[in-house]
Amino acid sequence: MADPFRIGIAGLGTVGAGVVDVIQKNGALLAQRAGRPIEIVCVNARDKAKDRGVDLSGYDWVDQAEDMAARDDIDAVIEMIGGSEGTAYDLVKGGLGGGKHVVTANKALVAHHGVELAELAEGNNAGLAYEAAVAGGIPVIKGLREGAAANRIERVYGILNGTCNYILSAMESDGRDFADVLKDAQDMGYAEADPSFDIDGVDAAHKLAIMASLCFGTQLDFEGVELAGIRKILAADIAQARDLGYRIRLIGHAEIDGENGDACLFQRVSPRLVSKQHPLAHVTDATNAVVAEGNFSGRLLFQGAGAGDKPTASAVVADIVDIARGEMGPAFAMATGDLQAMQRAPSGHRRSKVYLRMMVADKPGVLAEIAAAMRDADVSIESLIQTEVEDGSALIAMVTHECREQAITDTLETLSGSDSLLGEPMVMHLLRD
Amino acid sequence: MADPFRIGIAGLGTVGAGVVDVIQKNGALLAQRAGRPIEIVCVNARDKAKDRGVDLSGYDWVDQAEDMAARDDIDAVIEMIGGSEGTAYDLVKGGLGGGKHVVTANKALVAHHGVELAELAEGNNAGLAYEAAVAGGIPVIKGLREGAAANRIERVYGILNGTCNYILSAMESDGRDFADVLKDAQDMGYAEADPSFDIDGVDAAHKLAIMASLCFGTQLDFEGVELAGIRKILAADIAQARDLGYRIRLIGHAEIDGENGDACLFQRVSPRLVSKQHPLAHVTDATNAVVAEGNFSGRLLFQGAGAGDKPTASAVVADIVDIARGEMGPAFAMATGDLQAMQRAPSGHRRSKVYLRMMVADKPGVLAEIAAAMRDADVSIESLIQTEVEDGSALIAMVTHECREQAITDTLETLSGSDSLLGEPMVMHLLRD
Repeated sequence: MADPFRIGIAGLGTVGAGVVDVIQKNGALLAQRAGRPIEIVCVNARDKAKDRGVDLSGYDWVDQAEDMAARDDIDAVIEMIGGSEGTAYDLVKGGLGGGKHVVTANKALVAHHGVELAELAEGNNAGLAYEAAVAGGIPVIKGLREGAAANRIERVYGILNGTCNYILSAMESDGRDFADVLKDAQDMGYAEADPSFDIDGVDAAHKLAIMASLCFGTQLDFEGVELAGIRKILAADIAQARDLGYRIRLIGHAEIDGENGDACLFQRVSPRLVSKQHPLAHVTDATNAVVAEGNFSGRLLFQGAGAGDKPTASAVVADIVDIARGEMGPAFAMATGDLQAMQRAPSGHRRSKVYLRMMVADKPGVLAEIAAAMRDADVSIESLIQTEVEDGSALIAMVTHECREQAITDTLETLSGSDSLLGEPMVMHLLRD
Repeated sequence: MADPFRIGIAGLGTVGAGVVDVIQKNGALLAQRAGRPIEIVCVNARDKAKDRGVDLSGYDWVDQAEDMAARDDIDAVIEMIGGSEGTAYDLVKGGLGGGKHVVTANKALVAHHGVELAELAEGNNAGLAYEAAVAGGIPVIKGLREGAAANRIERVYGILNGTCNYILSAMESDGRDFADVLKDAQDMGYAEADPSFDIDGVDAAHKLAIMASLCFGTQLDFEGVELAGIRKILAADIAQARDLGYRIRLIGHAEIDGENGDACLFQRVSPRLVSKQHPLAHVTDATNAVVAEGNFSGRLLFQGAGAGDKPTASAVVADIVDIARGEMGPAFAMATGDLQAMQRAPSGHRRSKVYLRMMVADKPGVLAEIAAAMRDADVSIESLIQTEVEDGSALIAMVTHECREQAITDTLETLSGSDSLLGEPMVMHLLRD
């Protein structure tokens, strides 16, 4: 059998330790699949004494992660530290610069510096692989980059954050409010103490920006992702959506808007109403799912565990096996020099059906006022439910016919000064089937 | 840019012509992704004059497909002829023997001769790729072989035949009987004039045998697939299953039964009851879906168009791009010498819940007779519905608690001589969640 493929693992959190576990448990099988043994040479973490549930005694301990980049006895650096800057960035840059392959699960790093790093990999004939950075254990980077390689991809979208999907699923099944479910999720370890990274959509935006670049051959533009999270969703929204035949999911969605010289990149993370006919409506709990629509393949769906130490480690090791086999195509599906810088798409002209919920004063004339504002903006209503909430206030939830997004903005602008509205209206676009 | 990757396409049916179409329409993008242009050098089909909706004027016409194997001006043969023997087999063998790469969509060829051909590819340093042979446009071979490479795969199963799923979906939504829906499907081109290859499960068995080898590192054993098709499913079965919370799907299912020296390969294609909680219950029409359960990844689901010229051509061209990039891992995920010959698993000891439907005489004592036979075989009933069908006969449908398959065989053996039973009982296993 060929020479071993020698790796150093930097960072031994749950995923890093999971990678050790996979290689220890499935080592013989990995050697068959890679055509050579995968050998862990060295590991690194902050605290050497900590018990991580795996035996590390056979590996060199490296105190400073950055030092791995310079070691002559490894072929690849496995970066499991996290964070877009600092040690992780320095290590990956150093490793690639020295011609070492790099496998990372670090979505922030790839979303912020992916193209720069891919360029460095190219220039040094090294592989840069990041399957685990998007949708955990699901081989979606491979599916998009290689499996869908024959296609001009027209849209890519999906459920990219397990925490949000867990919360929305629990709100749906239990009829509870957001804050209440979030607290439970935190207690059970499904959500961080500071949950904003997940629930405000930042994590999903990292993943979306990476997929958009890969699918459309564009430069990464994380800052160009429009962001809306799930904090403002009420139990009542979930109930109204259900009555109208929909479920609410946090969807990351990217597509190319316009053609040729006028092409712009549209990227948005926001809660959407998803028809019960659509497969994403049936994705519950912490599961992730990604849909890509190719001009030949049609709709492809990839679904599985979007987080967790074992699934994420599975994705990291799949990358290791690929590189050990010598299979390491361009990180973003084509040479970085071919990736286009693309304008951000304005959203006002985009057409979709819209869910609109308002808390209103329970008094005569309120509905007339709202209906008039919508008429003036040329928005027509497909269905509407008004329910009394408590003394003096009512909830109006509606789904519009397809209209320009600007028309909704105009409607809300007209209503913004009105004392009929109690609090901020909630706007969610419907996912086109 | 590097030298073009030169191909010859043998067979210009809808998929072969679709491959030409992909390369013509997405050529610039393919060149970026492959790092070199994909160039069609020659094509072959039986009838040169036929209009196939694509311009073939720029390509050499080859009268005898087998002649492509010997051409010096192509790097790869794209075999789109079909059939496990004859021209397709000779061409692929000749091509690989001469060190040419081969891409094929031919499931029968791969299911019957895959390992022999993979060996030939290995010996000649050529790639053999067959993504399109399983589940049409879904990159499931890649997902299993590479995406799930870190895992010991514990089970693989799925909806592998679009015609059957279309028929079952239509029976479900319209409440119609099998024969009636089949006729419509034939009229609309969703089913062949001789539909047995699809509806008796042979096509799904080809795909299952290929996936089993790939997932478990075993020799291909198409003849070892237990087969049951969908001909005997009544509209009443679908209705009863629905009332009990299930949908009926034709499922191909493989797993390793036992461990180490006692390990056996279990492969079965049969209609199953699938709980509405399971994602496969929501796969409708001609869509295919494959689930693989890895010891680290957990459950991975791949879903999309399982047939059709465009999706299938998308899969063929993905293979071409891979090989053009020099990425062509072992056809069955490891060297053919590592593939184990494995005993076929006996099924009698397998445990599952079972759906059992009988048409019975509508007279006193029938239920007592059936219940006694089940008691004697140690089968207990979870739920049972008896409905009158017409004068003198009734339908009994039940779901048992989990029991050994042999116990159901014993029950039916006991009842086989009884004049209470009208016709053959229907047995369908439930898919474990």
